[in-house]
Amino acid sequence: MIVLGLDPGSRYTGYGVVEQEGSRLRELGSGRISLVSEPSPETRMARLAEGVERALDRWRPAAAALETLYHGKNSRSLIALAQARGVILSVLGRRGLEVEELSPAEVKKAVCGNGRADKTQVARMVDVLLGSGKGRRSADASDALAVAICCVQGRPLRRGVEATRSAR
Amino acid sequence: MIVLGLDPGSRYTGYGVVEQEGSRLRELGSGRISLVSEPSPETRMARLAEGVERALDRWRPAAAALETLYHGKNSRSLIALAQARGVILSVLGRRGLEVEELSPAEVKKAVCGNGRADKTQVARMVDVLLGSGKGRRSADASDALAVAICCVQGRPLRRGVEATRSAR
Repeated sequence: MIVLGLDPGSRYTGYGVVEQEGSRLRELGSGRISLVSEPSPETRMARLAEGVERALDRWRPAAAALETLYHGKNSRSLIALAQARGVILSVLGRRGLEVEELSPAEVKKAVCGNGRADKTQVARMVDVLLGSGKGRRSADASDALAVAICCVQGRPLRRGVEATRSAR
Repeated sequence: MIVLGLDPGSRYTGYGVVEQEGSRLRELGSGRISLVSEPSPETRMARLAEGVERALDRWRPAAAALETLYHGKNSRSLIALAQARGVILSVLGRRGLEVEELSPAEVKKAVCGNGRADKTQVARMVDVLLGSGKGRRSADASDALAVAICCVQGRPLRRGVEATRSAR
């Protein structure tokens, strides 16, 4: 199963594509969609939508995941992140993809075994789990891969819980 | 010139299409895109994108406008509104439309002559300026029409200022 993880940002949105075969995880691709050279909010959001569509076209994931938004940010960055999130959700929704929203703590716990791990630990564990690749990944790409790993690993478990719930 | 005004919301997004011919304003259409029956964030955002595209296909506006987001809201509603805004911006940007972001006070002043007018006054002045139509409009549609009116009326003025600036 192929999963696309996304890490929305107002300047860069990270993406990471992970395939699980049995217990083996493999990175199919990762990178970031850059919005920094765009002149206006509408062109930034347009380029973001196109970038997500390109990732979907290229890897055809069966599911996608992104982190829930952390409320504690200042409202300016909260607005920028939420706008990017809305764009991503709309593109995924229009393609009929299932989207999982994962808390930052869930992602850190899935990847590092510790819900309070810092960004460096997450990046290091992504390297361990997927190999460090040809060079250093951007922080955005590492974060997106961590989300994808959490999603792909947790799915059977969460599905099981849902099945148990609906059987009651 | 035809302008599309939008009033993003987490449950309903109002839209209003206004045409200006000389000094005359005319409503071409208005209504709201409902997201209430959608089961998930991604399907809500997908329906919103489709609704905005339908409005663009039907009326082919030359420009679009929406209000800047008011920071004072609680972060939950701020996130919902900003997500909807991101979707709208991306659809407009992908169609190459110019988007104006207007402050709530600018819109109220343009429509009512008073930047602190309340919603009832705005709706009443929209009725006066465009005629009250066949029945009562939804508050979302009235708000979106007010944004469109502000945009279409202010454009020559703002353009003039820009021209003056660039001539210096």
